[in-house]
Amino acid sequence: MNHKPGFEGRAGITRVEAFSDGVLAIIITIMVLELHAPEASGFAALWALWPTFFSYVISYNYIAIYWVNHHRMFGHARVVTNGLLWSNIVLLFSLSMIPFSTAYLGKHFGDPVASAVYAVSLLAPSFAFLCLESSIRRSGSQSAESQAYYRSTTRKGTFAAAIYALAVLLGVFWPYVGVTLAGLVGLFWIVPYGPLDSLFLRCEDLNAS
Amino acid sequence: MNHKPGFEGRAGITRVEAFSDGVLAIIITIMVLELHAPEASGFAALWALWPTFFSYVISYNYIAIYWVNHHRMFGHARVVTNGLLWSNIVLLFSLSMIPFSTAYLGKHFGDPVASAVYAVSLLAPSFAFLCLESSIRRSGSQSAESQAYYRSTTRKGTFAAAIYALAVLLGVFWPYVGVTLAGLVGLFWIVPYGPLDSLFLRCEDLNAS
Amino acid sequence: MNHKPGFEGRAGITRVEAFSDGVLAIIITIMVLELHAPEASGFAALWALWPTFFSYVISYNYIAIYWVNHHRMFGHARVVTNGLLWSNIVLLFSLSMIPFSTAYLGKHFGDPVASAVYAVSLLAPSFAFLCLESSIRRSGSQSAESQAYYRSTTRKGTFAAAIYALAVLLGVFWPYVGVTLAGLVGLFWIVPYGPLDSLFLRCEDLNAS
Amino acid sequence: MNHKPGFEGRAGITRVEAFSDGVLAIIITIMVLELHAPEASGFAALWALWPTFFSYVISYNYIAIYWVNHHRMFGHARVVTNGLLWSNIVLLFSLSMIPFSTAYLGKHFGDPVASAVYAVSLLAPSFAFLCLESSIRRSGSQSAESQAYYRSTTRKGTFAAAIYALAVLLGVFWPYVGVTLAGLVGLFWIVPYGPLDSLFLRCEDLNAS
Repeated sequence: MNHKPGFEGRAGITRVEAFSDGVLAIIITIMVLELHAPEASGFAALWALWPTFFSYVISYNYIAIYWVNHHRMFGHARVVTNGLLWSNIVLLFSLSMIPFSTAYLGKHFGDPVASAVYAVSLLAPSFAFLCLESSIRRSGSQSAESQAYYRSTTRKGTFAAAIYALAVLLGVFWPYVGVTLAGLVGLFWIVPYGPLDSLFLRCEDLNAS
Repeated sequence: MNHKPGFEGRAGITRVEAFSDGVLAIIITIMVLELHAPEASGFAALWALWPTFFSYVISYNYIAIYWVNHHRMFGHARVVTNGLLWSNIVLLFSLSMIPFSTAYLGKHFGDPVASAVYAVSLLAPSFAFLCLESSIRRSGSQSAESQAYYRSTTRKGTFAAAIYALAVLLGVFWPYVGVTLAGLVGLFWIVPYGPLDSLFLRCEDLNAS
Repeated sequence: MNHKPGFEGRAGITRVEAFSDGVLAIIITIMVLELHAPEASGFAALWALWPTFFSYVISYNYIAIYWVNHHRMFGHARVVTNGLLWSNIVLLFSLSMIPFSTAYLGKHFGDPVASAVYAVSLLAPSFAFLCLESSIRRSGSQSAESQAYYRSTTRKGTFAAAIYALAVLLGVFWPYVGVTLAGLVGLFWIVPYGPLDSLFLRCEDLNAS
Repeated sequence: MNHKPGFEGRAGITRVEAFSDGVLAIIITIMVLELHAPEASGFAALWALWPTFFSYVISYNYIAIYWVNHHRMFGHARVVTNGLLWSNIVLLFSLSMIPFSTAYLGKHFGDPVASAVYAVSLLAPSFAFLCLESSIRRSGSQSAESQAYYRSTTRKGTFAAAIYALAVLLGVFWPYVGVTLAGLVGLFWIVPYGPLDSLFLRCEDLNAS
């Protein structure tokens, strides 16, 4: 049998979503605790905070994008399988590491280790997201709309994961290149219904027809 | 098409509201972590905490007001558009900066930079709230009641944003004046159904009839 | 009109309850952050943590009791009035101060100021709870069962508030007496359906019949 | 009467579950705050964090398992009794101690006190879980499926508690043995529908038929 007792039907999906929302809401908010009000007065002391602030903006944006895509994905789910449950738990775990890796990058901007760690921390949730998608693809809705969504997500997700992996390697040798590359991938997901996505969908619709 | 998959109809609205509630509940509560129990015993050590405590009261009140107005606003929403989703994410981001700016003000009361930063941190969510309102106005309920609500909120919101902008400027030259001015704006929103609001609504009802 | 737009009917009540649950879940959990793993190894360093641990147990218990009573109370609410909304916001605020006052007591056990502050922090939410109850009594269910509940809660709440006020005064002169007195009041609420409560209800049922 | 006002029927169960979800989401996420980005750059400083990171992985996994089993268990509940309410509150309390005990273990790996404390912190929620199960068994669903679930959970839970108790004792003399033993018990619950569980269920089905 495929379903998990205590997580039956749409109610089970809703429960997993609600728990994920809780974890994401906490991850997105605790990062602000890293912003400590400077003890010294004046503009110079405040300005010294900009890397931490910038890290916070980036991380906030990433988590927000995952939250939007998480709901979009769960709109196609039908049953809570073991695969869905645990790939979701792994996804939330890997997302909970982003505050750490961004703080580390903020403290050591331009350092090869920090750049690689940062790219790894973006690679990990992108893998977990692909696992989650693969799990929902097998047990979820099989409508034409869902199929198009799965194809688009797999394509975009695999592409993103490949770029992140490249960013890990490049980050070791040219830190700024690695970080910039990893950061650019975010743009794919910020505009999930924008021109980029339409392009992907259109090609696939042609293939499917 | 206007709606976002995974956020269809009222269920989508409810989801965005629930996530916002989670973030607001965390923002409103983590501020208390800034209140550290003094190591020294006696009343003097406790009394030294009053600026931090006062900051906490102010911030708590601001976030509570936004929570109340956020729900009031979402009562008029009908679909989750990209505009609604992202202006809400920006609103939550700007609200998450209030604990920082208030702590900064608490540490440097009377400092021009701290006063300006504080006023900016109140100006930012007021802009985001206007964007959110504009997004809901276009895609939400078009009933006479909703129209009256939109008019009242736009008027009050624009007025508040103008005062905050003035407070930023004044805060640079006369810190206490800037902070006092910014703080007074809160009163508009504390009494959203009070005499002030009735006054605004009445003028508009006359214009509309 | 009495109700608040965006908080209509039972759905509005549920929303206020869900937000309160979120805040209470955070308050009850952040206290554990005060328990820092000792740097030194061995049993002595661990044992030195007992006042903080004890404080955590007490505070956890208090918040849990308020959570249970909060739901019990909201079971009788029918509409979200301004009074309900703001007395609930004040209640959550005063409860958010308990971690602070308990940590302060843990650091300065036996100090008159700490004892008085602790008793004040228990007195404040008990006042807010009475305000909330008074607001729900006026706008909520008027069934015989609800009436009995209101009478019982007012009686118990007023009694508790009086003891807390006494504990504040006594704490200034005899710290241990004040704290013990304040702590004992918790027992009333731990056993809300126990023999104590039945006694109160029985007297009132006699009066009402 | 058995039920608690304000927590009637399935809605009451859902409420207790939602609050528990909130607390679990916070516990699982605040642990990441213990991971501080190292001040020094380079791989050595990062590598020094591995015990803390490892502790975080272990604790995250434990809380995730409890979250899954908590929902599975509540799927069989029918009414909110005093026993269910308070054993759930005690369960959440004991789980909130796991971040502390794991951080303590991470700092003093191989220390007898740390090993015993760690095993005690795993023993405590396993006791609370058995109490919760016993409370739900008495007041919850009595279907054949639920009965099989209760038998399986009692057997597995008692077995786990016994191993944890043994780990406490062994940890005092051979720290590594105690911790390894306690850690291994987790495997039982990671695979709640795996081969191990089927084995248990099969034996019991034979006994029951």
